[in-house]
Amino acid sequence: MIDDAPKFAVVLSGCGVFDGSEIHEAVMTLLAIDETGCKYQCFAPNTWQAKTVDHFTGNATALAGDDENRNVLAESARIARGDIKDLSTFDAKDFDAIIFPGGFGAAMNLSDFAVKGPACEVNTEVERAIKDAYQERIVIAAMCIAPTVIARVLGKNKITVTIGKDKAIAAGINKMGAFHEDKEATEVCVDEENRIVTTPCYMLGKSIKDIREGTRNMIDEILELID
Amino acid sequence: MIDDAPKFAVVLSGCGVFDGSEIHEAVMTLLAIDETGCKYQCFAPNTWQAKTVDHFTGNATALAGDDENRNVLAESARIARGDIKDLSTFDAKDFDAIIFPGGFGAAMNLSDFAVKGPACEVNTEVERAIKDAYQERIVIAAMCIAPTVIARVLGKNKITVTIGKDKAIAAGINKMGAFHEDKEATEVCVDEENRIVTTPCYMLGKSIKDIREGTRNMIDEILELID
Repeated sequence: MIDDAPKFAVVLSGCGVFDGSEIHEAVMTLLAIDETGCKYQCFAPNTWQAKTVDHFTGNATALAGDDENRNVLAESARIARGDIKDLSTFDAKDFDAIIFPGGFGAAMNLSDFAVKGPACEVNTEVERAIKDAYQERIVIAAMCIAPTVIARVLGKNKITVTIGKDKAIAAGINKMGAFHEDKEATEVCVDEENRIVTTPCYMLGKSIKDIREGTRNMIDEILELID
Repeated sequence: MIDDAPKFAVVLSGCGVFDGSEIHEAVMTLLAIDETGCKYQCFAPNTWQAKTVDHFTGNATALAGDDENRNVLAESARIARGDIKDLSTFDAKDFDAIIFPGGFGAAMNLSDFAVKGPACEVNTEVERAIKDAYQERIVIAAMCIAPTVIARVLGKNKITVTIGKDKAIAAGINKMGAFHEDKEATEVCVDEENRIVTTPCYMLGKSIKDIREGTRNMIDEILELID
């Protein structure tokens, strides 16, 4: 890279905790990257949401295949203020790390873990991005429920991740071949060998200042691995 | 109030800079409130967006009256993780301050300033909330383009606000009876007499760390007025 500043790819999964990226986690990630003098580029897969949820009522207003259902890339663009790229254009050689914020979008749009658990399938472009990142030895980071996606793709490599302290999800992660490490809300699980960094965020976080602290800890740990 | 912690009402206008609340400004406001030990409750008017914009392409996908157009309260709920109330239930007596983040939603949904300039009309519930807040002498704060809404409602009270350094918008604010003070991206304009606090955010801010700094400065100034 010409510019010395570490460069992060941030992969979004929509815009809103119940059907896309958890907004606070995504925005706090962008803040921690920016304030540490690093650069980011947002990405999202150009695909349809599993469903669209009215965040006021909590009801699904559209399912996959419905005309009113929303596109993951177009919704993710809201968090990125329009500055976002189709994940199919992601090249791991251009980045020092790739980060997956949480929210149900990670378990409904990037994968179908929310429905199928450890037998889930992962979106083709998401799987390719994770495999390329692992191959290139750039850091892979994920927060909240998103480590399940990493576990599904890289489980056979005996990676270690955290989603906090939920026993059922931890068992699912084990079933996919990965190890799970219990962590508190703002703590970070660092798998140095595999260069994977994960943190619980809203799996355990009580309010937005916990998300602020956890994402900042995550970025600091990533920067240590990059150095 | 029973609880000692200052309580903020945050009024959202959708979810996304081009047709709703600017997400970074809204989220950084929630962070600054939470980390200073204060409480917040999000509100939004239960009304339809002026239009819905695809944030990837920049094109309008639905206009007012179209079935596919989105509801301001339901979209704002995404930023609030579902914990949001209809603005019609806002009671100024329950709060120490009311804050309006920016984004085109402020100038398209809370008012139609984006179309009509200083001759704009303000959403009925938004107007009531601002007038009640002024009457009760709680602090009124606004960022980015949102001070135009405050100027429209309270201009005749000779209030002073900032939207940064844009001469055309500043002239519009003057036309509505208010004074405009030029400010840099992260600076705050404080009208002590009228208890109004405004800051430019993305009118001038270059990246998310400027929004972080500006919103934190804004909350600190509000807390000084409350003390």
